Amino acid sequence: MAKKSVTFNDIAKYTNFSKTTISRYFNNPDSLTLENQQKIADALVALNYQENKVARILANGKTEFVGIIIPNLYFHYYSQMLTEILSSYETFGYKFLVFVGNDNENVERQYIQELLSYKIEGMIILSGTISSKELASYNIPIVTIEREDEYTCSVNSDNYMGGIQATSLLHKSGCDVLIHINSDLSPKVPAYGRIRGFLDVCEERQIEHELILKDLGNTFEEQVKQLSDILETLESKYAGRKKGIFISNDTAANVMLNLLIKKYGSLPDDYRLVGFDGSPISKSAIIPISTVGQQIEKIADETMKLLVMQMDERKKRKPVLLDAPIHKVVTPVLLRRETTS
Amino acid sequence: MAKKSVTFNDIAKYTNFSKTTISRYFNNPDSLTLENQQKIADALVALNYQENKVARILANGKTEFVGIIIPNLYFHYYSQMLTEILSSYETFGYKFLVFVGNDNENVERQYIQELLSYKIEGMIILSGTISSKELASYNIPIVTIEREDEYTCSVNSDNYMGGIQATSLLHKSGCDVLIHINSDLSPKVPAYGRIRGFLDVCEERQIEHELILKDLGNTFEEQVKQLSDILETLESKYAGRKKGIFISNDTAANVMLNLLIKKYGSLPDDYRLVGFDGSPISKSAIIPISTVGQQIEKIADETMKLLVMQMDERKKRKPVLLDAPIHKVVTPVLLRRETTS
Repeated sequence: MAKKSVTFNDIAKYTNFSKTTISRYFNNPDSLTLENQQKIADALVALNYQENKVARILANGKTEFVGIIIPNLYFHYYSQMLTEILSSYETFGYKFLVFVGNDNENVERQYIQELLSYKIEGMIILSGTISSKELASYNIPIVTIEREDEYTCSVNSDNYMGGIQATSLLHKSGCDVLIHINSDLSPKVPAYGRIRGFLDVCEERQIEHELILKDLGNTFEEQVKQLSDILETLESKYAGRKKGIFISNDTAANVMLNLLIKKYGSLPDDYRLVGFDGSPISKSAIIPISTVGQQIEKIADETMKLLVMQMDERKKRKPVLLDAPIHKVVTPVLLRRETTS
Repeated sequence: MAKKSVTFNDIAKYTNFSKTTISRYFNNPDSLTLENQQKIADALVALNYQENKVARILANGKTEFVGIIIPNLYFHYYSQMLTEILSSYETFGYKFLVFVGNDNENVERQYIQELLSYKIEGMIILSGTISSKELASYNIPIVTIEREDEYTCSVNSDNYMGGIQATSLLHKSGCDVLIHINSDLSPKVPAYGRIRGFLDVCEERQIEHELILKDLGNTFEEQVKQLSDILETLESKYAGRKKGIFISNDTAANVMLNLLIKKYGSLPDDYRLVGFDGSPISKSAIIPISTVGQQIEKIADETMKLLVMQMDERKKRKPVLLDAPIHKVVTPVLLRRETTS
């Protein structure tokens, strides 16, 4: 049977205090003597009292809820990031309402509208469907990660540096033609920095290079198809040359590695490979893949700090809102493994 | 600047209706004419009114929040299950408060206590730290997935059938000694059925077999170490025999496959391999791995139906609670791929 909830009235009766005293215990405990605080605390245990935070939210407007919109959990990058953000519960006490958008802009918008009506305190947005301008108009603290962020606070990896690291590593490992495979990104997306980094190194050092911008898809089957086609083209176009391939994520880099190994039995001497992200798959691949490691833990931590700072400000009597969005950048770490040695 | 919220008073002034009429619009709209409903609806848009669901929760006790406790998101099985559960938002409208427990029983308990104080309507528990007896004592609708479930409603795969399918497939592919690698599970955990299925087939058909129960760990490095040791033992113990290995999850099966391929260049003829789960890694491995596929989408769907049924019952004037927990079982699907052909 469902238990009847314990009311302030019940606690007052049990302790012989007034309801006002009970209310003070919850809202301003220091106004009571330690002895009386203890009496009420004991009564709560005896009566099996369960605090109703909903009533408290209504009183002080603090829900301690944060919404997260993430594109998918298929990529290890996203599930790692989500894990790190959720684990901040122990540090900050915020609870997270999580939604996987699957690139469905309208459902994401509907979900956000609902969260706003629940008086959530802030949002973390990894999905790229809704413009940062629209997000900013929602008028609550927001931090975005690795997406267009003109009007929102954000935390991103230093993608440009990552692009330089990956390209330089391939060049140093003796490749004479460099290929970068990425999606056809908008220059407004932080990950576009990887393309700029690649091009700048190649042009500055006058290395022959090719940029392949193509959507590789979100499923294993699509990636195999797209990358097989690309590999076939590279094989004929650069036969006899030492090819350095920089692929924009480890999931796709692993597919490319497996295609090469299935064809040649091992990674041929005329191929070198670098991924991006530092996902578990880069380490557990048949040959550990060199990659640009994103500092997921640090990005999650900076994100929470930037969000909490904004949320705390809103709780002040006269909050001073930000004049302009803050953009934080986290340095990636190059992980040299067997595909470039 | 933060917008001032729009009150019933503001809407009343704007429309020239009484506050009582505005209140009726929200609580019992059919008591107003369609024309008046439209006038108020237009006013809400004009005033940029944002519904405060917190106030509604306090009035009717429905938060539309469900808590989820998941052990980790490193295993693809968990991130797939979470994705499927979250996507039920479009069908049922529930919002999910997600927590990754990392086997920390006390933090999970603290988190659950907090969720209860927010009047969440139900919980889905994939983590195994807190006993089903304790979970049941929380007295809210709960469904557990693949964990000890004596006192809670649950949805699980038919693990026993999965064990039989995997073992039979290895036997049919001509192996003369069968090995099952699993954790040292409690017989109370549904996944123990995999062990029973393996043993029953081997004993019934009088196949030589070995059961290796050992914790392989939750990281790639640990799994490599444990499985290398196991492989070395099997190599010497069963030299010259055709070995069929059934490993309890695809992540570990992929590690074992890579160890074999690194050693022999390909999967040797005297080894056959079957995993469990049907995770993406089983398909994207260097050789596609035969596995027992869990119907994640169906499990998530049955879980939500079972939970919604209980939550709906609680909203009735005289809820009739379940006499005994309901346990649903979903049939797994054998996926024959290249590691058994």
